Amino acid sequence: MSIIVLGTVALDSVKTPFGKREYMLGGSAVHFAMSARLFTNVNLVAIVGKDFPQKYIDFLHKKGIILTSLIRTEGKTFKWKGQYQGDLNTALTLSTELGVLSAFKPTVSNEQRKIKHIFLANVDPDIQSHLLSHMRSPHLVGLDSMNYWIKHKRQALIRLLKKVNIYVANEQEARDLSQESNLIKAAQRLRSFGPPMILIKKGEHGVILYSDKFLFSLPAYPTDKVIDPTGAGDTFAGGFMGYLTRVKRIDPSSLKKAVVYGTIAASFNVEDFGLDKTSRLKIKHLEKRLADFKKFVLF
Amino acid sequence: MSIIVLGTVALDSVKTPFGKREYMLGGSAVHFAMSARLFTNVNLVAIVGKDFPQKYIDFLHKKGIILTSLIRTEGKTFKWKGQYQGDLNTALTLSTELGVLSAFKPTVSNEQRKIKHIFLANVDPDIQSHLLSHMRSPHLVGLDSMNYWIKHKRQALIRLLKKVNIYVANEQEARDLSQESNLIKAAQRLRSFGPPMILIKKGEHGVILYSDKFLFSLPAYPTDKVIDPTGAGDTFAGGFMGYLTRVKRIDPSSLKKAVVYGTIAASFNVEDFGLDKTSRLKIKHLEKRLADFKKFVLF
Repeated sequence: MSIIVLGTVALDSVKTPFGKREYMLGGSAVHFAMSARLFTNVNLVAIVGKDFPQKYIDFLHKKGIILTSLIRTEGKTFKWKGQYQGDLNTALTLSTELGVLSAFKPTVSNEQRKIKHIFLANVDPDIQSHLLSHMRSPHLVGLDSMNYWIKHKRQALIRLLKKVNIYVANEQEARDLSQESNLIKAAQRLRSFGPPMILIKKGEHGVILYSDKFLFSLPAYPTDKVIDPTGAGDTFAGGFMGYLTRVKRIDPSSLKKAVVYGTIAASFNVEDFGLDKTSRLKIKHLEKRLADFKKFVLF
Repeated sequence: MSIIVLGTVALDSVKTPFGKREYMLGGSAVHFAMSARLFTNVNLVAIVGKDFPQKYIDFLHKKGIILTSLIRTEGKTFKWKGQYQGDLNTALTLSTELGVLSAFKPTVSNEQRKIKHIFLANVDPDIQSHLLSHMRSPHLVGLDSMNYWIKHKRQALIRLLKKVNIYVANEQEARDLSQESNLIKAAQRLRSFGPPMILIKKGEHGVILYSDKFLFSLPAYPTDKVIDPTGAGDTFAGGFMGYLTRVKRIDPSSLKKAVVYGTIAASFNVEDFGLDKTSRLKIKHLEKRLADFKKFVLF
């Protein structure tokens, strides 16, 4: 089994109380892939500009990520510049340069069109729809978005929600899109938009998975080492979807374990800048931390 | 075994999106007692004014709460008026009338001085210290406070922290007193002030219990029915301390279960105004909800 992820490949410049980095490899699809690769083959669908460093292509290739549908075209790579302060829970976006992303039409190979597990990481909902319409037999489709699209492309996003199985949102996005402040009510409302499963990511407070059949609430891995949370949500989603792709089941027990693996993967992501930690991860590191995590959360 | 709780007995006026109530029975010691009584005998140490309705005294008495050290004196009962909006996570205090609380010197009977489990619910730290100094053989002492005392009586509070086993704080109080924004770092810093155990209450996001020996993180009971959260933290503390008093053990497994029972008790508190729900609770209701809760949080 393999998975296909559509999203951004970005050059991230980040400042946190612990230092700063410029033009690191980042983006929603990259963070997702770096985590999902621990469980399954990952096909990346994205676009970069001519300025995108060859070393990053080589790096992704070495990590086993399938780059057949990574377009490299005239123009500039998508760039994000952000800053974290205080409890590092919220990113302050300083600047965004869309570059080649603004004219992105994703294309996939005939082989890739047959892939059944699909993750539409954060990018314009029209681009997400475009890709999904080209997939032949979607079986498990996850969708992430962001406040910008909730505000500016609400209808496109709502239409897309009818076609996906899992909607992944952070706390604020869930509240904004549902117009409900209680998170359980928010999940119920989001469920009424279409997706049978709603995953609400609460950062340091963990995750809620809501479905008609069951509810699951899991705290985050407790850590005092938060260096750079950029991509933590995508890393979570990569672990979650990657695990489900590996086990080929979507029953409650597998879904719970998928949330747990996503949580563990995300806990590594925040411990260093960009992909510094997740790119070195092996499944054995997840397993070891999972054993600790059980002591923290089970009773 | 029994427990003694010092704190406020108040007349609460509350407005939430679901309605409003005036001069309800409330206060930190009352909410604590209403939950702790499910597990153990509860001795209440507090003060009220001549305006305090006899029906409330009768009500507390009927609930089995020991009122020997509830002083009724000339003057007005402590009154709190507050409002909740949006996600109901934060109370907006509209007014506070200290009344008889401003000259409160708690006294306890000789019998009560021998009680080993003590909870110092939110009240002036000088009053908390005064009571604690009169207790003969404190074995397990829990302490709660609030932002007002952290700001205005920081030194008194820090001195008191050296004498307690468990400090119970909400997220903001933990951050304010520790001056750390990461909650695990905040807990470590608070631990350095003295208490071997730190309990951080995160409202809808659950609880973290930090100690030198172990860490435990538990989500809240997921609910879409939050009517009035006033007293939820005290109800949590009552369940937590009450359970420990009942089982007479403070090993990690008992502490985890105490956090679970506190969480379940608090989940009932928020479902109606004031004590409307918790005053009707029986241990069997906690047990039933605990069975549901396990499905929500265990994997």
